Amino acid sequence: MPDIDPTITGFTIRDLRFPTSLDAIGTDPMNSAGENALGYLQYHTDAGLIGTGSSFSNGQGNEILCVAIQALAPRFVGQKLSTLTEDFRSTHRALLSGQIRFMSPERGVLQLACNAVLNALWDLWAKAEGKPLWKLVCDMTPEQFVSVIDFRYLTDVITPDEALRMLQEKQATKQARMEEASRNEAVPGYSTSIGWLGFSDEEVASRLRAALDQGFKHFKLKVGVDLEGDLKRLSLVRKIAGDDAVIMTDVNQLWDVDEAIEYMPKLSQFNLWFIEEPTSPDDILGHAKIRSALKPHNIGVATGEHINNRVMFKQLLQAEAIDAVQLDAFRLSGMNEILSVLLLAAKYGVPVVPHSGGCGMTEACAHISTIDYVVVSGKKSILEYTDHLHDVFVNPAEMTPSTAHHVSPTAPGYSSDIKEEVFEEFEYPSGSFWQTEKGKAMVADKWRGVPGRQTS
Amino acid sequence: MPDIDPTITGFTIRDLRFPTSLDAIGTDPMNSAGENALGYLQYHTDAGLIGTGSSFSNGQGNEILCVAIQALAPRFVGQKLSTLTEDFRSTHRALLSGQIRFMSPERGVLQLACNAVLNALWDLWAKAEGKPLWKLVCDMTPEQFVSVIDFRYLTDVITPDEALRMLQEKQATKQARMEEASRNEAVPGYSTSIGWLGFSDEEVASRLRAALDQGFKHFKLKVGVDLEGDLKRLSLVRKIAGDDAVIMTDVNQLWDVDEAIEYMPKLSQFNLWFIEEPTSPDDILGHAKIRSALKPHNIGVATGEHINNRVMFKQLLQAEAIDAVQLDAFRLSGMNEILSVLLLAAKYGVPVVPHSGGCGMTEACAHISTIDYVVVSGKKSILEYTDHLHDVFVNPAEMTPSTAHHVSPTAPGYSSDIKEEVFEEFEYPSGSFWQTEKGKAMVADKWRGVPGRQTS
Repeated sequence: MPDIDPTITGFTIRDLRFPTSLDAIGTDPMNSAGENALGYLQYHTDAGLIGTGSSFSNGQGNEILCVAIQALAPRFVGQKLSTLTEDFRSTHRALLSGQIRFMSPERGVLQLACNAVLNALWDLWAKAEGKPLWKLVCDMTPEQFVSVIDFRYLTDVITPDEALRMLQEKQATKQARMEEASRNEAVPGYSTSIGWLGFSDEEVASRLRAALDQGFKHFKLKVGVDLEGDLKRLSLVRKIAGDDAVIMTDVNQLWDVDEAIEYMPKLSQFNLWFIEEPTSPDDILGHAKIRSALKPHNIGVATGEHINNRVMFKQLLQAEAIDAVQLDAFRLSGMNEILSVLLLAAKYGVPVVPHSGGCGMTEACAHISTIDYVVVSGKKSILEYTDHLHDVFVNPAEMTPSTAHHVSPTAPGYSSDIKEEVFEEFEYPSGSFWQTEKGKAMVADKWRGVPGRQTS
Repeated sequence: MPDIDPTITGFTIRDLRFPTSLDAIGTDPMNSAGENALGYLQYHTDAGLIGTGSSFSNGQGNEILCVAIQALAPRFVGQKLSTLTEDFRSTHRALLSGQIRFMSPERGVLQLACNAVLNALWDLWAKAEGKPLWKLVCDMTPEQFVSVIDFRYLTDVITPDEALRMLQEKQATKQARMEEASRNEAVPGYSTSIGWLGFSDEEVASRLRAALDQGFKHFKLKVGVDLEGDLKRLSLVRKIAGDDAVIMTDVNQLWDVDEAIEYMPKLSQFNLWFIEEPTSPDDILGHAKIRSALKPHNIGVATGEHINNRVMFKQLLQAEAIDAVQLDAFRLSGMNEILSVLLLAAKYGVPVVPHSGGCGMTEACAHISTIDYVVVSGKKSILEYTDHLHDVFVNPAEMTPSTAHHVSPTAPGYSSDIKEEVFEEFEYPSGSFWQTEKGKAMVADKWRGVPGRQTS
């Protein structure tokens, strides 16, 4: 029971869009011009606290996400926080149930909306307790941790009892990891910001040198569109970063299964940790086949940023299809489901390397990776860092200046609050940026971001 | 090139909801009170023809589907039909691409919206050619058929060349099957309308007798909530229908994998063809495990009504997880993707038994099953028939009076036009039904259809 027990009195939903395409940020083989966007929910309460939750999209269509949040958010208005969190497992399941479930059970836009609504509750809960969310979760007993998770569709590989035993085993050494977290030593970072597809080689080299100075040792590059270009860029990065740097590659679902198997060995000389999203995120068996084929070339396989639920992660692990669980901060149904995926990954001994490449994700993932390290896996992994759009947050993600670790959040909540003045500029369509000629032209482009397509 | 080549001049989207929960229609273990609903798109043209496409939801949240259609439909305004259909594969891929793709690639509400938009083009094309859609497709050369399909993510199991060979092999005997279709002998039906969960045993018995009189030999029952009740109901149905009737069962995703394996053998005495949706539709490996465990009990496994794309069907077939491909009329991205799933099923020799249990689905599936029989599999399967909401259509689905076959559609198009007068009553929220006290009360129930949940 929280110290303060606010009642939810109403909510505000904002459609926030940032014109990231103007700087080629976020460009990859499948996404040539994206605008980082959020469907942003604020639950207002009688205690003055605001619970904030959001989900990410890539610009166009963000209004669909907002309408989906609008469909679910009213369900909790009028409720006391404690009545929602005391049996959070049932609250979670109820939110995914009813007439609306049939449209898209635990996937798609509706799952993003569930995430925003549930995370607004988590944010509110952490604020009511006066703790950053990672600490609220790490302070739970194993019994409390298990009680917030819906194990539906998971019990063939993990039961609540087994989860409890896994968490209990980590308790003896938990305090030492909590202290590492408080010293910002729990979550090493890796950088994607050096290697967006739309960057020139000069820009990549300059950003890479800056990242090395900041202590980064892990880097990710977008590849797959042009083999000669990939070879040139990987040579450049390997030369500057040195043999000890860990290099990852990403094609964002560009290939069919056999194309991935044909292409990647041509890059094997660069000693790559993994190829990320080699094909459709839905293709579990395809990822397993690719992983098996690339093993002789010492290249692993990773996916997860587009995985919508625990059932898909369960199978990727069962099929031994991945070397890294790249869960997304916003694509599962809230912290509740994320905790279940952390447990699955720990059970299979596969590291959690969250997807954190869009607005607000690094802020959220700093909590997620800390929870994973302190109470679930007990193993340090790495967490993606991208350097854009942190200044819009009240409590922005930060990296340590010379060791490239994520700074553990200290403010109460889930680090999801955006500054009021940002709404004025980037709320869509009323914000001042979207009212400029440039903004209006971007919106008018119906086919924006479709590779090779002219506007009709 | 069609005889008429209309240009799309604009569109109308309607949120149509029918209060089916009042009659317990559509009730099953996961859906206790649904209102059949459609996001309904009409493309207007300069030729006076209207291209209609829609997707289905279960009531609440249908506005999300409509907003998603609104986000995609403008892309084709101003275009000539022939420029969209001459390279339909590229049109299809482009519609799934761009900024909007990131939100939910080929799944969820956005996939439903793609379906509505693409099917409006197919409907328009068939109307311009003056043919029912099944005939337009069956009249295509194998080369034309293959050219409308995007094989992305499929080429590890089927290539365009292999698809072409499969279709060519069926050409020699196609004419005889076309004639069967014109005699309404191509698509036998099965009935779900006898066995909705909310029906009393008396109602089931009475509906079953009527269906037997109409020539039905295949029946499906909702089970899984109460073992004693299931045993009683199955006994009743087997007794009335006789030993030769084919009985199927459906739990609509109620169980975890091991629960399905534990429960179903208790029903094995009734000689069941399959259990449908035993668990999460995303659990390919789970379905494979269940199928393997139920094989000694002579009970098969089926799923598909919630499968969103060809990649998931590909894997269900690769994993030998299913005995029937239950593709849904609206959940894949239009006829384009449906054709690819028909090819996959034919390649693996698994019968296509479409999901047809909601408003408009039987109308669409009569086309799909006919295409499957005439030019793809060459084998007769069965197609679900539910007896509600046909009268809202201009060209309603029909069954032959005594042989229980689906009548092959004869009107030009995809049988998707709804009568104008229906809009007045059931468009939401303005329609006259939704303005009654009863209608308003149903809408006000935020938790409607959540099993065991009180309205908050």
